[in-house]
Amino acid sequence: MPVLISLPDPAARAHAARIGDRLGIEVTVPEIRQFPDGELYVRFDRDTMPDEVAIVGNLVHDTFLRVAFLAGTARDLGATRVGLIAPYLSYMRQDAKFHPGEGVTATYFGRLVSGVVDWMVTVDPHLHRYDSLKSVYSIPTTVVRSASSIASWVGAEIKQPVLVGPDAESVQWVSAVAEHCGAPYVILEKTRRGDRDVSVSSPSYPWNGHTPIIIDDIVSTGRTMLEATKQLRAAGSAPPMCIAIHAVFADALTEELVAAGASSIVTCNTIEHASNRICIREPLVDAVRSLLS
Amino acid sequence: MPVLISLPDPAARAHAARIGDRLGIEVTVPEIRQFPDGELYVRFDRDTMPDEVAIVGNLVHDTFLRVAFLAGTARDLGATRVGLIAPYLSYMRQDAKFHPGEGVTATYFGRLVSGVVDWMVTVDPHLHRYDSLKSVYSIPTTVVRSASSIASWVGAEIKQPVLVGPDAESVQWVSAVAEHCGAPYVILEKTRRGDRDVSVSSPSYPWNGHTPIIIDDIVSTGRTMLEATKQLRAAGSAPPMCIAIHAVFADALTEELVAAGASSIVTCNTIEHASNRICIREPLVDAVRSLLS
Repeated sequence: MPVLISLPDPAARAHAARIGDRLGIEVTVPEIRQFPDGELYVRFDRDTMPDEVAIVGNLVHDTFLRVAFLAGTARDLGATRVGLIAPYLSYMRQDAKFHPGEGVTATYFGRLVSGVVDWMVTVDPHLHRYDSLKSVYSIPTTVVRSASSIASWVGAEIKQPVLVGPDAESVQWVSAVAEHCGAPYVILEKTRRGDRDVSVSSPSYPWNGHTPIIIDDIVSTGRTMLEATKQLRAAGSAPPMCIAIHAVFADALTEELVAAGASSIVTCNTIEHASNRICIREPLVDAVRSLLS
Repeated sequence: MPVLISLPDPAARAHAARIGDRLGIEVTVPEIRQFPDGELYVRFDRDTMPDEVAIVGNLVHDTFLRVAFLAGTARDLGATRVGLIAPYLSYMRQDAKFHPGEGVTATYFGRLVSGVVDWMVTVDPHLHRYDSLKSVYSIPTTVVRSASSIASWVGAEIKQPVLVGPDAESVQWVSAVAEHCGAPYVILEKTRRGDRDVSVSSPSYPWNGHTPIIIDDIVSTGRTMLEATKQLRAAGSAPPMCIAIHAVFADALTEELVAAGASSIVTCNTIEHASNRICIREPLVDAVRSLLS
């Protein structure tokens, strides 16, 4: 019987508990602490592991070493196949060399993770210049789509939606949601001048009577959402609702978006945030079921 | 002509500058910054790299990803062999499973580093249960010894030294320094009950007229140095001088040691700290010369 290994943060534990409950498999939460000098210590509350285990949690910031150490420990305790269930997959945005001398961290990170676990499941990775995770991950990967979860939420909450993609990259998310809920959609054009400096073209806006739903995969600084909101309002739209799959929030955002004329922001629960409203656990469970059975 | 890649911290830059100066090779300091969400960005101020490069800096705390990304970028820019010059080698202390379910992070970390660079130079790694770095690193490694640098410093500063090892693990460092400076030495016995809770046996102390020099490879919390100081003073010694190779300081230490009866604490400059007095750059240069020539 496989075992799920949850990272100790509340979001990972909630995902692991749901998956474990649905699939009827045990969840174990390892002890992870730091020695006085900052080095990590990991320990499981058991001395053996079954052949199949999967680590649940996001590889954000400095989590990579934790996952590498948990995978190593699980193998020492008997696991022969270690998977990773990472609802949000980090390091997918630096996917090309934009300036001379730059590192393409997406490929280096993919190589590191592929050296540590045997398979990976993630929700809607930021695939922009790469067609597929195969370009950066040498292990088998499964991509869970949030589109049906988002479409269900939109269908239940919004009467006459028009979906809006803030830039060309967003068309994949917006069109998928549109297909699920049968709503029209429009894609804006974006110019990025820096991490926090973007502008979005003014669209023609023939959607009076509709509620615009801006959809993007990632909100980080929120500049893209903010510019799209401003342009829609300038074009005469009703207050847009903003939906992002991954709440990679770096700055406080909701107040600014509302001040710019949005009604609110809603995200999927791939990264824990106060704006989480759309649950992606059921499609995640389905993907894990087929990998752990 | 090889290139040295320095991590951006002042200690790494000082080591790289000296090595580059002595070997007549260029030092480049990459830009490393964080995106708003915490992900790392790396960039070199050049668009090509020679076949041979070496990264200079310690893999402490969260530095592993930085080194992995710099190595990846250097390879993308043309490097075919990437070395690592890490004066202090972290993750060498969890070198066995002391309790059921524990991870042996020394081996996992060694595997990660061995997957990222092609060779490594370090100063006196904490080899305790492993005989050699070959047990944990699959790449060629060179160990630089600090004993002659420490012995020179002791010879110049202390008139009639007796070297003291605070525990059985320290005999390798103490005996090597003793051999270089022709001083007598004694090894104490230590009992460790926790990260910050250790006691050291009371030695017989027939060294009146000598200045005791307590030598250990790592001071972290300083408990071991503190207990050894107390026991020596209780046994009637003159105020001991404390020498550590690696200043992995987690707690403020000097005041406490002096309060316990030590004269002061002195460290090698493998990790930057106010107590650095003993320079290990010349043996480091010699080791790197033979690897990069």
